[in-house]
Amino acid sequence: MAVVLAHHSYGKSRVRLTKVTRLAGRHEVRELLVAITLEGDFALSHTVGDNRLVIPTDTMKNVVYALAKQHRLESIEDFAMALADHFLEHHGHVAASIIRITEQPLLRIRIGDLEHPHAFAGAAREVETCGVKRSRGGPIVESGLDELFLLKTTGSAFTGFLRDRYTTLADASDRLLATMLTAEWRYADATVSWNSARETIRRALVQTFAEHESLSVQHTLHAMGSAALAACPAIDRITLSMPNKHRILVDLGPFGLENAGEVFVATDEPHGTITGTLARG
Amino acid sequence: MAVVLAHHSYGKSRVRLTKVTRLAGRHEVRELLVAITLEGDFALSHTVGDNRLVIPTDTMKNVVYALAKQHRLESIEDFAMALADHFLEHHGHVAASIIRITEQPLLRIRIGDLEHPHAFAGAAREVETCGVKRSRGGPIVESGLDELFLLKTTGSAFTGFLRDRYTTLADASDRLLATMLTAEWRYADATVSWNSARETIRRALVQTFAEHESLSVQHTLHAMGSAALAACPAIDRITLSMPNKHRILVDLGPFGLENAGEVFVATDEPHGTITGTLARG
Amino acid sequence: MAVVLAHHSYGKSRVRLTKVTRLAGRHEVRELLVAITLEGDFALSHTVGDNRLVIPTDTMKNVVYALAKQHRLESIEDFAMALADHFLEHHGHVAASIIRITEQPLLRIRIGDLEHPHAFAGAAREVETCGVKRSRGGPIVESGLDELFLLKTTGSAFTGFLRDRYTTLADASDRLLATMLTAEWRYADATVSWNSARETIRRALVQTFAEHESLSVQHTLHAMGSAALAACPAIDRITLSMPNKHRILVDLGPFGLENAGEVFVATDEPHGTITGTLARG
Amino acid sequence: MAVVLAHHSYGKSRVRLTKVTRLAGRHEVRELLVAITLEGDFALSHTVGDNRLVIPTDTMKNVVYALAKQHRLESIEDFAMALADHFLEHHGHVAASIIRITEQPLLRIRIGDLEHPHAFAGAAREVETCGVKRSRGGPIVESGLDELFLLKTTGSAFTGFLRDRYTTLADASDRLLATMLTAEWRYADATVSWNSARETIRRALVQTFAEHESLSVQHTLHAMGSAALAACPAIDRITLSMPNKHRILVDLGPFGLENAGEVFVATDEPHGTITGTLARG
Repeated sequence: MAVVLAHHSYGKSRVRLTKVTRLAGRHEVRELLVAITLEGDFALSHTVGDNRLVIPTDTMKNVVYALAKQHRLESIEDFAMALADHFLEHHGHVAASIIRITEQPLLRIRIGDLEHPHAFAGAAREVETCGVKRSRGGPIVESGLDELFLLKTTGSAFTGFLRDRYTTLADASDRLLATMLTAEWRYADATVSWNSARETIRRALVQTFAEHESLSVQHTLHAMGSAALAACPAIDRITLSMPNKHRILVDLGPFGLENAGEVFVATDEPHGTITGTLARG
Repeated sequence: MAVVLAHHSYGKSRVRLTKVTRLAGRHEVRELLVAITLEGDFALSHTVGDNRLVIPTDTMKNVVYALAKQHRLESIEDFAMALADHFLEHHGHVAASIIRITEQPLLRIRIGDLEHPHAFAGAAREVETCGVKRSRGGPIVESGLDELFLLKTTGSAFTGFLRDRYTTLADASDRLLATMLTAEWRYADATVSWNSARETIRRALVQTFAEHESLSVQHTLHAMGSAALAACPAIDRITLSMPNKHRILVDLGPFGLENAGEVFVATDEPHGTITGTLARG
Repeated sequence: MAVVLAHHSYGKSRVRLTKVTRLAGRHEVRELLVAITLEGDFALSHTVGDNRLVIPTDTMKNVVYALAKQHRLESIEDFAMALADHFLEHHGHVAASIIRITEQPLLRIRIGDLEHPHAFAGAAREVETCGVKRSRGGPIVESGLDELFLLKTTGSAFTGFLRDRYTTLADASDRLLATMLTAEWRYADATVSWNSARETIRRALVQTFAEHESLSVQHTLHAMGSAALAACPAIDRITLSMPNKHRILVDLGPFGLENAGEVFVATDEPHGTITGTLARG
Repeated sequence: MAVVLAHHSYGKSRVRLTKVTRLAGRHEVRELLVAITLEGDFALSHTVGDNRLVIPTDTMKNVVYALAKQHRLESIEDFAMALADHFLEHHGHVAASIIRITEQPLLRIRIGDLEHPHAFAGAAREVETCGVKRSRGGPIVESGLDELFLLKTTGSAFTGFLRDRYTTLADASDRLLATMLTAEWRYADATVSWNSARETIRRALVQTFAEHESLSVQHTLHAMGSAALAACPAIDRITLSMPNKHRILVDLGPFGLENAGEVFVATDEPHGTITGTLARG
């Protein structure tokens, strides 16, 4: 039976890039999801397993990070074109390169009228929540927020932790800190103005995240919860859950490039999970 | 063997409420996700199948819609308390009612400096996309957006459609229109300023959605695509996909209440799917 | 500016069909997800809002249910062809109809060597879980399962429940019962053979679901939990969560068809949520 | 204002473990999702950022892989207990360790009556699909399957690929191969028995995956598609999409352990994406 390879393509999907541009007094940050597809003279890898012309998809991923280091990334279209050009220019047997980029813009956190120089919140997915439990003794009201993405590009360290034979993590004196915040607070006073209380608490949480000099996620969680309790007398306890959504520095050394805290890979799993409940003493 | 019913509760989850408040010249709209749990004297339904004290979860859903009609819904906490109170006050065998509400706030669409009176966009989930296909002949650049939720509370009709023996749908001269917009446009001119082109096109799409007197989703899709082509000369075609995310008027008649376009159930499936590509003639 | 409608299509997505074929002594059941797309002479609805040739997507949904009643549904391909033919045959202005069907097959529950005549489990998504909490006092081991879909086509009723002014639900003496089971049991004896204990408990849960004459979800939950405790002496308590995944009988009356418990719409939201914990007395 | 840290815990979530046990002539494989939570004397990290007692969540992840190497993993409960014990035994300031494990069992692929020694399929999520496009010229029928997870523990290599300055990937002469197969085939003959054709094609795809000596994903894709065309004369083309769901060998060297192809981390992103269409010549 004769079989024809009527169409074939291959590539790398879901390459997650975090790029920090560290200007004086102001950091820019973008988080992109990149997919690369190549078409061209790859039939022999299909038919006889001859891989000599196959650019590994692992290499495509490396190209994303290496070019990200050298690109200004002012628009996703410009960066996509640079990636598309790369494969055509370096590999004569590539007939077409297809780049797809998806971005969910990050918004700069504001403190009063000022934009924060290095702290950001995600526009997307945040929801407001509340729960009322009413038994014959009266209502308990808890409100909260969920899926609020927060990221800061400096002002976060993690050093001096316990070391044993299973420890491979290095001290980090200046790392990216990203989390997807879930908060839930309980009202001691059910006559409060719910909407303005919510606004006050959310502002305290977000601004403290931005301004706190973090020595660990736990440390920042504690500061955020304390700030919420201080800002809104109507609540008597608050629980925060802050997964540590790791942004891992990419090793660009093999490509002869320095990575001065600029190019990171965003990961979802595994992730740290830090939870704490703060109450009035 | 003796078995003890150590704990039991039941309720209704994922009750989706859309509430429109039709003020003169300005509509308010909120979309909530409500869950209700009751605890109390329901053990006989477990042990012997005696349902006489069981409030059906279908009734709980009805209560959400009936109370939504009569509640100002200024905060989710107030509405949750009204729901929690309802079950305790009307049913002596209910020991506790637990209400959970989740809301993703809708933002009013702006036209220049003005807020639109009845058109809204969801803050959440929207992403920016681009795709570059580069072959030896030069690049093709397509940009777009995805997961942009749009809703308007008036200015949308669907009447005069084909009727056959399978038609049960009634004409609607004034309905809610909700969609999750996906758009993709192709650049004829690759020297454009990408970011400002994107902004121009997005604004044309969103404002046309808000202002168009819609005779069908198709009709609005065509107007939106035409507006985008008119606003940005650098693109030569645009494809829009607009699922019809139905908001269905709840029949409050059984509860002695009128529903003058105020209380709707939001549904995800099934949904209409309307797609069109507009190009320069 | 001249604008051309270069391509357009529309249709209905995520139409969920449950079809029961009630043979003597043995029921067949299939759950399908159907999508319909039509191409043809629909341009006027786009350009001027003239809907006279528009077959509402609501009608397409009705066609799925009406044809399902009359089709043997021996393969999804045959049913897709019948749907595709319908729109071409009845509407001369339809140029092409595109039907997509997705099915996740249901497996008949076995009792010993016998296939159950009317009870089914979903192959998909089920996971095994365990949790160990170890403090200085010794371990607590809980195991469970999650996302086990169960459905029976008869042997389930819900009647005689509390009625008040918000009740619109009718008594159902013979309904479909579907749930996505989550179970978690606690071991009193940590020297048990974990894998065979799990197998014993799962079998007790599934077989009791199949064989129980259900007067409510609560009633079946209680029977299932009791059976698990009886089957496995090593556990001392079990918590079951059983959302009521409603399958709602479709009204085929408008199409001149009787629906004798054959054609249902599957829904995910809202859904009832029933939870109970059973322990040894 | 006095603030009390009323509760706190932390840990690592979504640690993905693939464990291969290489018996003579027969491999066992399990894929687990592990979460670890610790409670204990960690308050100083919250209140003053003193991390000296903090076991990094990165270390917890390392412990999962190191213990997996040394554990027989006959039940998830046993492994959870070993993990729980580890943290209590090695760290006196840990008051409680909570381990949660989720597993979706893999099924051994069968060739006739025989179980394959090293190839597996996931029970879950697989769906059957079909699409019919009917225009005035007659129907086109395409059927397929989606979300079929396949994994083999040997018989897969990737060597001799193109190397340039961005290549860091090493040759792999014996690696794990995992994919989530999507297949779609087109019928040239619409009088076929759909269900038996589907069964024949699925068997050809799965068995070829199991038995093929893979030199690349492309190579196996080509063999699988060719086998389907050979097995079912009624189809004239088949498109396969095979993401390369990488299973990455964990470096256990820092813990003084050898990893002879036994302990892997399962990853979802980034992933390779290989697509090909095979047709009759």
